Amino acid sequence: MARIRLYIDQPLVAGQPVPLDGAQAHYLTGVMRLRAGDAVTVFNGRDGAWAATLAEAGKRGGSLDVGAQTGPQQDPPDLWLLFAPIKKARTDFIVEKAAEMGAARIQPVSTDHTNSERIRQDRLQAHAVEAAEQCGGTFVPPVADLLPLAQLLDGWDPARRILWADEARVGPAEALAGLPPGPWAILIGPEGGFSGAERAHLSRLPFVTPVSLGPRILRADTAAVAALALWQAALGDWR
Amino acid sequence: MARIRLYIDQPLVAGQPVPLDGAQAHYLTGVMRLRAGDAVTVFNGRDGAWAATLAEAGKRGGSLDVGAQTGPQQDPPDLWLLFAPIKKARTDFIVEKAAEMGAARIQPVSTDHTNSERIRQDRLQAHAVEAAEQCGGTFVPPVADLLPLAQLLDGWDPARRILWADEARVGPAEALAGLPPGPWAILIGPEGGFSGAERAHLSRLPFVTPVSLGPRILRADTAAVAALALWQAALGDWR
Repeated sequence: MARIRLYIDQPLVAGQPVPLDGAQAHYLTGVMRLRAGDAVTVFNGRDGAWAATLAEAGKRGGSLDVGAQTGPQQDPPDLWLLFAPIKKARTDFIVEKAAEMGAARIQPVSTDHTNSERIRQDRLQAHAVEAAEQCGGTFVPPVADLLPLAQLLDGWDPARRILWADEARVGPAEALAGLPPGPWAILIGPEGGFSGAERAHLSRLPFVTPVSLGPRILRADTAAVAALALWQAALGDWR
Repeated sequence: MARIRLYIDQPLVAGQPVPLDGAQAHYLTGVMRLRAGDAVTVFNGRDGAWAATLAEAGKRGGSLDVGAQTGPQQDPPDLWLLFAPIKKARTDFIVEKAAEMGAARIQPVSTDHTNSERIRQDRLQAHAVEAAEQCGGTFVPPVADLLPLAQLLDGWDPARRILWADEARVGPAEALAGLPPGPWAILIGPEGGFSGAERAHLSRLPFVTPVSLGPRILRADTAAVAALALWQAALGDWR
Protein backbone atom coordinates (compact mmCIF):
# COMPACT_ATOMS: atom_id res chain seq x y z
CA MET A 1 0.00 0.00 0.00
CA ALA A 2 1.18 3.52 -0.80
CA ARG A 3 2.60 5.31 2.23
CA ILE A 4 1.25 8.68 1.13
CA ARG A 5 -2.32 8.97 2.31
CA LEU A 6 -4.78 11.62 1.21
CA TYR A 7 -8.23 12.46 2.48
CA ILE A 8 -10.61 13.27 -0.36
CA ASP A 9 -14.11 14.48 0.31
CA GLN A 10 -15.53 12.67 -2.71
CA PRO A 11 -17.30 9.40 -3.45
CA LEU A 12 -14.72 6.68 -4.18
CA VAL A 13 -15.58 4.20 -6.91
CA ALA A 14 -13.12 1.83 -8.58
CA GLY A 15 -12.23 3.05 -12.04
CA GLN A 16 -13.61 6.54 -11.54
CA PRO A 17 -11.29 9.54 -11.42
CA VAL A 18 -11.55 12.00 -8.55
CA PRO A 19 -10.59 15.67 -8.82
CA LEU A 20 -7.86 17.27 -6.72
CA ASP A 21 -8.01 20.89 -5.65
CA GLY A 22 -4.96 23.12 -5.94
CA ALA A 23 -3.78 22.49 -2.36
CA GLN A 24 -4.03 18.71 -2.76
CA ALA A 25 -2.23 18.78 -6.10
CA HIS A 26 0.53 20.93 -4.57
CA TYR A 27 0.85 18.58 -1.60
CA LEU A 28 1.28 15.53 -3.82
CA THR A 29 3.64 17.03 -6.39
CA GLY A 30 5.30 19.97 -4.63
CA VAL A 31 5.69 18.53 -1.12
CA MET A 32 5.69 14.77 -1.62
CA ARG A 33 7.31 14.93 -5.09
CA LEU A 34 4.93 12.48 -6.75
CA ARG A 35 4.73 12.20 -10.52
CA ALA A 36 1.96 11.01 -12.78
CA GLY A 37 1.46 7.28 -12.26
CA ASP A 38 2.72 7.27 -8.64
CA ALA A 39 0.63 5.55 -6.02
CA VAL A 40 -1.42 7.21 -3.26
CA THR A 41 -3.79 5.76 -0.68
CA VAL A 42 -7.02 7.73 -0.50
CA PHE A 43 -9.94 7.69 1.93
CA ASN A 44 -13.05 9.80 2.29
CA GLY A 45 -13.89 9.09 5.93
CA ARG A 46 -16.75 6.73 5.02
CA ASP A 47 -15.65 4.07 2.53
CA GLY A 48 -12.35 2.65 3.78
CA ALA A 49 -8.96 2.95 2.07
CA TRP A 50 -8.43 2.84 -1.70
CA ALA A 51 -5.46 2.51 -4.00
CA ALA A 52 -5.11 5.42 -6.40
CA THR A 53 -2.56 6.80 -8.82
CA LEU A 54 -1.83 10.37 -9.70
CA ALA A 55 -3.25 11.08 -13.16
CA GLU A 56 -2.39 14.75 -13.54
CA ALA A 57 -1.60 17.72 -11.35
CA GLY A 58 -1.06 21.39 -12.04
CA LYS A 59 -1.28 24.67 -10.15
CA ARG A 60 -5.05 24.74 -10.13
CA GLY A 61 -5.69 21.10 -9.34
CA GLY A 62 -5.52 17.70 -10.90
CA SER A 63 -7.00 14.24 -10.67
CA LEU A 64 -6.42 10.77 -9.31
CA ASP A 65 -7.38 7.45 -10.85
CA VAL A 66 -9.05 5.32 -8.20
CA GLY A 67 -8.27 1.59 -8.21
CA ALA A 68 -9.35 -1.11 -5.78
CA GLN A 69 -10.42 -0.76 -2.17
CA THR A 70 -7.47 -1.84 -0.01
CA GLY A 71 -8.93 -1.65 3.48
CA PRO A 72 -12.25 -1.48 5.30
CA GLN A 73 -13.73 1.63 6.84
CA GLN A 74 -12.66 1.70 10.49
CA ASP A 75 -14.64 4.03 12.68
CA PRO A 76 -13.47 4.85 16.20
CA PRO A 77 -15.58 4.04 19.26
CA ASP A 78 -18.41 6.42 20.13
CA LEU A 79 -16.23 8.77 22.18
CA TRP A 80 -16.36 12.56 21.98
CA LEU A 81 -13.77 14.97 23.26
CA LEU A 82 -15.03 18.21 24.81
CA PHE A 83 -12.30 20.72 25.52
CA ALA A 84 -11.87 24.42 26.22
CA PRO A 85 -9.68 26.06 23.57
CA ILE A 86 -6.44 27.44 24.91
CA LYS A 87 -3.52 29.06 23.17
CA LYS A 88 -3.49 28.50 19.44
CA ALA A 89 -0.67 25.97 19.18
CA ARG A 90 -2.01 23.86 22.02
CA THR A 91 -5.54 23.95 20.62
CA ASP A 92 -4.21 22.69 17.29
CA PHE A 93 -2.38 20.02 19.21
CA ILE A 94 -5.46 18.84 21.08
CA VAL A 95 -7.35 18.41 17.81
CA GLU A 96 -4.45 16.53 16.23
CA LYS A 97 -4.11 14.28 19.28
CA ALA A 98 -7.84 13.63 19.52
CA ALA A 99 -7.90 12.45 15.90
CA GLU A 100 -4.86 10.19 16.43
CA MET A 101 -6.28 8.81 19.66
CA GLY A 102 -9.58 7.89 18.01
CA ALA A 103 -12.12 10.47 19.13
CA ALA A 104 -15.30 10.29 17.06
CA ARG A 105 -16.21 13.97 17.47
CA ILE A 106 -14.35 17.00 18.76
CA GLN A 107 -16.44 19.64 20.52
CA PRO A 108 -14.75 22.87 21.62
CA VAL A 109 -16.51 24.45 24.60
CA SER A 110 -16.21 27.91 26.11
CA THR A 111 -16.06 28.06 29.89
CA ASP A 112 -15.87 30.73 32.59
CA HIS A 113 -12.06 30.65 32.41
CA THR A 114 -11.76 30.28 28.63
CA ASN A 115 -9.82 33.11 27.07
CA SER A 116 -10.83 32.61 23.46
CA GLU A 117 -14.40 33.25 22.43
CA ARG A 118 -13.88 32.05 18.89
CA ILE A 119 -12.22 29.20 17.12
CA ARG A 120 -11.20 28.81 13.50
CA GLN A 121 -13.29 25.72 12.87
CA ASP A 122 -11.91 25.28 9.33
CA ARG A 123 -8.31 25.37 10.59
CA LEU A 124 -9.02 22.88 13.35
CA GLN A 125 -10.85 20.60 10.91
CA ALA A 126 -7.82 20.70 8.61
CA HIS A 127 -5.65 19.58 11.53
CA ALA A 128 -8.00 16.65 12.14
CA VAL A 129 -7.76 15.68 8.46
CA GLU A 130 -3.97 15.84 8.51
CA ALA A 131 -3.83 13.73 11.66
CA ALA A 132 -6.10 11.11 10.06
CA GLU A 133 -3.83 11.02 7.00
CA GLN A 134 -0.77 10.57 9.22
CA CYS A 135 -2.11 7.99 11.63
CA GLY A 136 -3.28 5.54 8.99
CA GLY A 137 -6.93 5.91 9.90
CA THR A 138 -9.88 6.05 7.55
CA PHE A 139 -12.04 8.28 9.75
CA VAL A 140 -11.88 12.03 10.28
CA PRO A 141 -13.55 13.29 13.46
CA PRO A 142 -15.76 16.30 12.79
CA VAL A 143 -14.75 19.42 14.73
CA ALA A 144 -17.90 21.16 15.90
CA ASP A 145 -18.34 24.88 16.42
CA LEU A 146 -17.57 26.36 19.83
CA LEU A 147 -20.47 26.09 22.29
CA PRO A 148 -20.77 27.45 25.82
CA LEU A 149 -20.38 24.60 28.30
CA ALA A 150 -23.63 25.44 30.12
CA GLN A 151 -25.59 25.40 26.84
CA LEU A 152 -24.03 22.08 25.85
CA LEU A 153 -24.89 20.53 29.21
CA ASP A 154 -28.48 21.88 29.12
CA GLY A 155 -29.17 20.06 25.88
CA TRP A 156 -27.13 16.97 26.71
CA ASP A 157 -28.48 13.50 25.97
CA PRO A 158 -28.02 11.75 29.32
CA ALA A 159 -27.45 8.43 27.54
CA ARG A 160 -23.98 9.73 26.68
CA ARG A 161 -21.90 9.74 29.83
CA ILE A 162 -19.25 12.37 30.45
CA LEU A 163 -15.87 11.52 31.92
CA TRP A 164 -14.80 14.73 33.59
CA ALA A 165 -11.05 15.17 34.04
CA ASP A 166 -11.36 17.05 37.32
CA GLU A 167 -8.05 18.67 38.18
CA ALA A 168 -9.21 19.34 41.75
CA ARG A 169 -9.84 15.65 42.38
CA VAL A 170 -7.31 13.55 44.22
CA GLY A 171 -7.69 9.83 43.93
CA PRO A 172 -7.13 6.83 41.77
CA ALA A 173 -7.65 6.86 38.04
CA GLU A 174 -8.52 3.19 38.50
CA ALA A 175 -12.20 4.15 38.69
CA LEU A 176 -12.01 3.85 34.91
CA ALA A 177 -11.91 0.08 35.13
CA GLY A 178 -15.51 0.02 36.36
CA LEU A 179 -17.07 2.35 33.80
CA PRO A 180 -20.03 1.01 31.85
CA PRO A 181 -19.73 0.69 28.06
CA GLY A 182 -21.77 2.88 25.74
CA PRO A 183 -21.43 6.37 24.28
CA TRP A 184 -19.09 8.63 26.21
CA ALA A 185 -17.52 12.06 26.08
CA ILE A 186 -14.34 13.19 27.81
CA LEU A 187 -14.39 16.72 29.24
CA ILE A 188 -11.11 18.60 29.67
CA GLY A 189 -11.05 21.99 31.37
CA PRO A 190 -9.29 25.21 30.45
CA GLU A 191 -6.08 26.60 31.87
CA GLY A 192 -7.00 27.67 35.37
CA GLY A 193 -9.60 24.92 35.61
CA PHE A 194 -13.36 25.14 35.80
CA SER A 195 -15.02 27.85 37.89
CA GLY A 196 -16.71 27.07 41.18
CA ALA A 197 -20.13 27.41 39.55
CA GLU A 198 -19.13 25.05 36.73
CA ARG A 199 -17.76 22.53 39.19
CA ALA A 200 -20.97 22.62 41.21
CA HIS A 201 -23.03 22.20 38.03
CA LEU A 202 -20.95 19.26 36.79
CA SER A 203 -21.05 17.59 40.20
CA ARG A 204 -24.86 17.59 40.18
CA LEU A 205 -25.29 15.92 36.80
CA PRO A 206 -25.99 12.19 37.05
CA PHE A 207 -24.32 11.41 33.72
CA VAL A 208 -21.01 13.03 34.72
CA THR A 209 -18.24 10.90 36.27
CA PRO A 210 -15.25 12.80 37.68
CA VAL A 211 -11.86 11.19 37.33
CA SER A 212 -8.43 12.10 38.67
CA LEU A 213 -5.44 12.17 36.35
CA GLY A 214 -2.82 11.81 39.05
CA PRO A 215 -1.16 14.07 41.60
CA ARG A 216 0.36 16.57 39.16
CA ILE A 217 -1.66 19.27 37.40
CA LEU A 218 -1.66 18.44 33.70
CA ARG A 219 -1.86 20.96 30.90
CA ALA A 220 -5.07 20.62 28.92
CA ASP A 221 -3.35 19.01 25.94
CA THR A 222 -1.59 16.45 28.15
CA ALA A 223 -4.80 15.71 30.00
CA ALA A 224 -6.67 15.15 26.74
CA VAL A 225 -4.23 12.50 25.50
CA ALA A 226 -3.98 10.84 28.92
CA ALA A 227 -7.75 10.62 29.39
CA LEU A 228 -8.28 9.36 25.84
CA ALA A 229 -5.61 6.67 26.41
CA LEU A 230 -7.20 5.46 29.65
CA TRP A 231 -10.66 5.38 28.07
CA GLN A 232 -9.47 3.60 24.93
CA ALA A 233 -7.70 0.96 27.03
CA ALA A 234 -10.70 0.48 29.32
CA LEU A 235 -13.64 0.72 26.91
CA GLY A 236 -12.43 1.56 23.43
CA ASP A 237 -10.58 0.03 20.51
CA TRP A 238 -7.32 -0.45 22.42
CA ARG A 239 -8.80 -3.40 24.32
CA MET B 1 0.20 28.95 48.77
CA ALA B 2 1.60 31.24 46.13
CA ARG B 3 0.54 30.26 42.62
CA ILE B 4 3.85 31.29 41.10
CA ARG B 5 6.29 28.43 41.46
CA LEU B 6 10.02 28.62 40.89
CA TYR B 7 12.64 25.89 40.75
CA ILE B 8 15.86 26.96 42.50
CA ASP B 9 18.92 24.77 42.40
CA GLN B 10 19.97 25.76 45.93
CA PRO B 11 19.63 24.36 49.45
CA LEU B 12 16.39 25.62 51.02
CA VAL B 13 16.53 26.52 54.71
CA ALA B 14 13.90 28.55 56.59
CA GLY B 15 15.12 32.07 57.21
CA GLN B 16 18.01 31.88 54.77
CA PRO B 17 17.95 33.98 51.60
CA VAL B 18 18.57 32.33 48.24
CA PRO B 19 20.06 34.14 45.25
CA LEU B 20 18.24 34.57 41.93
CA ASP B 21 20.08 34.69 38.64
CA GLY B 22 19.21 37.29 36.04
CA ALA B 23 16.75 35.05 34.18
CA GLN B 24 14.89 34.11 37.36
CA ALA B 25 14.73 37.74 38.50
CA HIS B 26 13.39 38.76 35.08
CA TYR B 27 10.79 35.97 35.14
CA LEU B 28 9.46 37.06 38.53
CA THR B 29 9.44 40.81 37.98
CA GLY B 30 9.30 41.27 34.21
CA VAL B 31 7.00 38.38 33.25
CA MET B 32 4.99 37.67 36.41
CA ARG B 33 5.05 41.30 37.61
CA LEU B 34 5.98 40.52 41.20
CA ARG B 35 7.27 43.23 43.53
CA ALA B 36 9.40 43.03 46.64
CA GLY B 37 7.45 41.28 49.37
CA ASP B 38 5.26 39.24 46.97
CA ALA B 39 4.94 35.52 47.60
CA VAL B 40 6.49 32.71 45.54
CA THR B 41 6.55 28.96 46.07
CA VAL B 42 10.02 27.52 45.57
CA PHE B 43 11.36 23.97 45.29
CA ASN B 44 14.75 22.49 44.55
CA GLY B 45 13.74 19.03 43.42
CA ARG B 46 14.79 17.39 46.69
CA ASP B 47 13.29 19.16 49.70
CA GLY B 48 9.61 19.71 48.97
CA ALA B 49 7.84 23.05 48.50
CA TRP B 50 8.65 26.21 50.45
CA ALA B 51 7.04 29.61 50.94
CA ALA B 52 9.28 32.48 49.89
CA THR B 53 8.99 36.20 49.27
CA LEU B 54 10.78 38.34 46.74
CA ALA B 55 13.44 40.38 48.58
CA GLU B 56 15.04 42.20 45.69
CA ALA B 57 15.40 41.83 41.96
CA GLY B 58 17.36 43.71 39.32
CA LYS B 59 18.76 43.08 35.88
CA ARG B 60 21.62 40.94 37.10
CA GLY B 61 19.75 38.91 39.69
CA GLY B 62 18.17 39.23 43.08
CA SER B 63 17.21 37.21 46.11
CA LEU B 64 14.31 35.51 47.83
CA ASP B 65 13.64 35.19 51.53
CA VAL B 66 12.75 31.59 52.29
CA GLY B 67 10.04 30.97 54.88
CA ALA B 68 8.45 27.70 56.00
CA GLN B 69 8.23 24.42 54.14
CA THR B 70 4.69 24.13 52.79
CA GLY B 71 4.69 20.68 51.25
CA PRO B 72 6.62 17.43 51.26
CA GLN B 73 8.99 16.28 48.56
CA GLN B 74 6.99 14.12 46.15
CA ASP B 75 9.05 11.96 43.88
CA PRO B 76 7.46 10.19 40.92
CA PRO B 77 7.49 6.40 40.61
CA ASP B 78 10.66 4.78 39.27
CA LEU B 79 9.71 5.12 35.62
CA TRP B 80 12.04 6.28 32.88
CA LEU B 81 11.08 7.49 29.45
CA LEU B 82 13.34 6.49 26.56
CA PHE B 83 12.51 8.23 23.31
CA ALA B 84 14.10 8.99 19.96
CA PRO B 85 14.34 12.75 19.37
CA ILE B 86 12.27 13.98 16.48
CA LYS B 87 11.63 17.47 15.18
CA LYS B 88 12.57 20.20 17.62
CA ALA B 89 9.11 21.31 18.71
CA ARG B 90 7.92 17.74 19.26
CA THR B 91 11.07 16.80 21.17
CA ASP B 92 10.49 19.77 23.49
CA PHE B 93 6.94 18.59 23.85
CA ILE B 94 7.90 15.05 24.80
CA VAL B 95 10.18 16.33 27.57
CA GLU B 96 7.50 18.69 28.86
CA LYS B 97 4.89 15.92 28.81
CA ALA B 98 7.19 13.39 30.47
CA ALA B 99 7.80 15.79 33.35
CA GLU B 100 4.08 16.49 33.75
CA MET B 101 3.21 12.81 33.56
CA GLY B 102 5.69 11.90 36.28
CA ALA B 103 8.67 10.32 34.56
CA ALA B 104 11.64 10.01 36.92
CA ARG B 105 14.28 10.22 34.19
CA ILE B 106 14.23 11.18 30.53
CA GLN B 107 16.69 9.37 28.27
CA PRO B 108 16.92 10.41 24.62
CA VAL B 109 18.11 7.57 22.39
CA SER B 110 19.38 7.57 18.83
CA THR B 111 18.05 4.82 16.61
CA ASP B 112 18.52 3.60 13.06
CA HIS B 113 15.71 5.91 11.90
CA THR B 114 16.57 8.87 14.12
CA ASN B 115 17.29 12.00 12.14
CA SER B 116 18.97 14.05 14.83
CA GLU B 117 22.37 12.96 16.11
CA ARG B 118 22.49 15.64 18.78
CA ILE B 119 20.24 17.14 21.35
CA ARG B 120 20.50 20.38 23.26
CA GLN B 121 20.49 18.80 26.70
CA ASP B 122 20.43 22.19 28.47
CA ARG B 123 17.38 23.31 26.49
CA LEU B 124 15.52 20.07 27.14
CA GLN B 125 16.40 20.23 30.84
CA ALA B 126 14.99 23.77 30.96
CA HIS B 127 11.73 22.46 29.49
CA ALA B 128 11.58 19.81 32.22
CA VAL B 129 12.12 22.50 34.87
CA GLU B 130 9.37 24.67 33.42
CA ALA B 131 6.97 21.73 33.27
CA ALA B 132 7.70 20.92 36.92
CA GLU B 133 7.00 24.54 37.87
CA GLN B 134 3.71 24.46 35.96
CA CYS B 135 2.40 21.11 37.10
CA GLY B 136 2.74 21.77 40.82
CA GLY B 137 5.36 19.07 41.30
CA THR B 138 8.45 19.23 43.48
CA PHE B 139 10.58 16.92 41.31
CA VAL B 140 12.43 17.69 38.09
CA PRO B 141 13.32 14.65 35.96
CA PRO B 142 16.92 14.74 34.78
CA VAL B 143 17.29 14.73 30.99
CA ALA B 144 20.23 12.51 30.11
CA ASP B 145 22.53 12.91 27.15
CA LEU B 146 21.65 11.17 23.91
CA LEU B 147 22.79 7.53 23.76
CA PRO B 148 22.60 5.03 20.91
CA LEU B 149 19.81 2.53 21.61
CA ALA B 150 22.08 -0.49 21.11
CA GLN B 151 24.63 0.87 23.58
CA LEU B 152 21.90 1.60 26.13
CA LEU B 153 20.49 -1.91 25.79
CA ASP B 154 23.93 -3.53 26.03
CA GLY B 155 24.53 -1.96 29.43
CA TRP B 156 20.95 -2.31 30.63
CA ASP B 157 20.19 -3.50 34.16
CA PRO B 158 17.69 -6.31 33.52
CA ALA B 159 15.98 -5.55 36.83
CA ARG B 160 14.43 -2.52 35.11
CA ARG B 161 11.83 -3.74 32.66
CA ILE B 162 11.16 -1.93 29.41
CA LEU B 163 7.67 -1.35 28.10
CA TRP B 164 8.15 -1.09 24.35
CA ALA B 165 5.47 0.85 22.49
CA ASP B 166 5.66 -1.30 19.38
CA GLU B 167 3.85 0.41 16.54
CA ALA B 168 3.86 -2.81 14.48
CA ARG B 169 1.99 -4.71 17.16
CA VAL B 170 -1.73 -5.24 16.89
CA GLY B 171 -3.50 -6.29 20.01
CA PRO B 172 -4.91 -5.15 23.30
CA ALA B 173 -3.21 -2.58 25.51
CA GLU B 174 -4.84 -4.52 28.35
CA ALA B 175 -1.61 -6.48 28.79
CA LEU B 176 -0.63 -3.58 31.03
CA ALA B 177 -2.97 -4.77 33.75
CA GLY B 178 -0.77 -7.80 34.35
CA LEU B 179 2.62 -6.07 34.51
CA PRO B 180 4.71 -6.68 37.62
CA PRO B 181 5.60 -3.69 39.81
CA GLY B 182 9.18 -2.46 40.10
CA PRO B 183 11.44 -0.16 38.12
CA TRP B 184 10.34 0.35 34.52
CA ALA B 185 11.20 2.31 31.43
CA ILE B 186 8.91 3.16 28.52
CA LEU B 187 10.49 3.03 25.07
CA ILE B 188 8.99 5.14 22.27
CA GLY B 189 10.32 4.83 18.73
CA PRO B 190 11.20 7.48 16.18
CA GLU B 191 9.14 8.64 13.24
CA GLY B 192 9.23 5.74 10.83
CA GLY B 193 9.48 3.26 13.69
CA PHE B 194 12.32 1.00 14.71
CA SER B 195 14.42 -0.77 12.06
CA GLY B 196 14.09 -4.50 11.46
CA ALA B 197 17.39 -5.12 13.27
CA GLU B 198 16.25 -3.06 16.25
CA ARG B 199 12.92 -4.86 16.37
CA ALA B 200 14.66 -8.23 16.31
CA HIS B 201 17.03 -7.12 19.07
CA LEU B 202 14.23 -5.80 21.28
CA SER B 203 12.17 -8.94 20.74
CA ARG B 204 15.00 -11.14 22.05
CA LEU B 205 15.51 -9.27 25.33
CA PRO B 206 13.79 -10.93 28.29
CA PHE B 207 13.24 -7.63 30.12
CA VAL B 208 11.38 -6.02 27.19
CA THR B 209 7.57 -6.23 27.03
CA PRO B 210 5.98 -5.04 23.79
CA VAL B 211 2.64 -3.27 24.03
CA SER B 212 0.18 -2.05 21.42
CA LEU B 213 -1.20 1.47 21.60
CA GLY B 214 -4.28 0.81 19.50
CA PRO B 215 -5.07 0.47 15.82
CA ARG B 216 -3.92 3.93 14.70
CA ILE B 217 -0.26 4.87 14.28
CA LEU B 218 0.52 7.48 16.93
CA ARG B 219 3.09 10.20 16.60
CA ALA B 220 5.95 9.77 19.06
CA ASP B 221 4.78 12.60 21.32
CA THR B 222 1.24 11.20 21.46
CA ALA B 223 2.55 7.69 22.13
CA ALA B 224 4.73 8.96 24.98
CA VAL B 225 1.82 10.57 26.83
CA ALA B 226 -0.50 7.62 26.16
CA ALA B 227 2.01 5.01 27.37
CA LEU B 228 2.90 7.07 30.46
CA ALA B 229 -0.82 7.41 31.27
CA LEU B 230 -1.47 3.68 30.97
CA TRP B 231 1.59 2.84 33.10
CA GLN B 232 0.77 5.44 35.75
CA ALA B 233 -2.79 4.12 36.02
CA ALA B 234 -1.63 0.48 36.18
CA LEU B 235 1.50 0.70 38.32
CA GLY B 236 2.30 4.31 39.16
CA ASP B 237 1.04 7.16 41.28
CA TRP B 238 -2.32 7.46 39.49
CA ARG B 239 -3.56 4.32 41.20
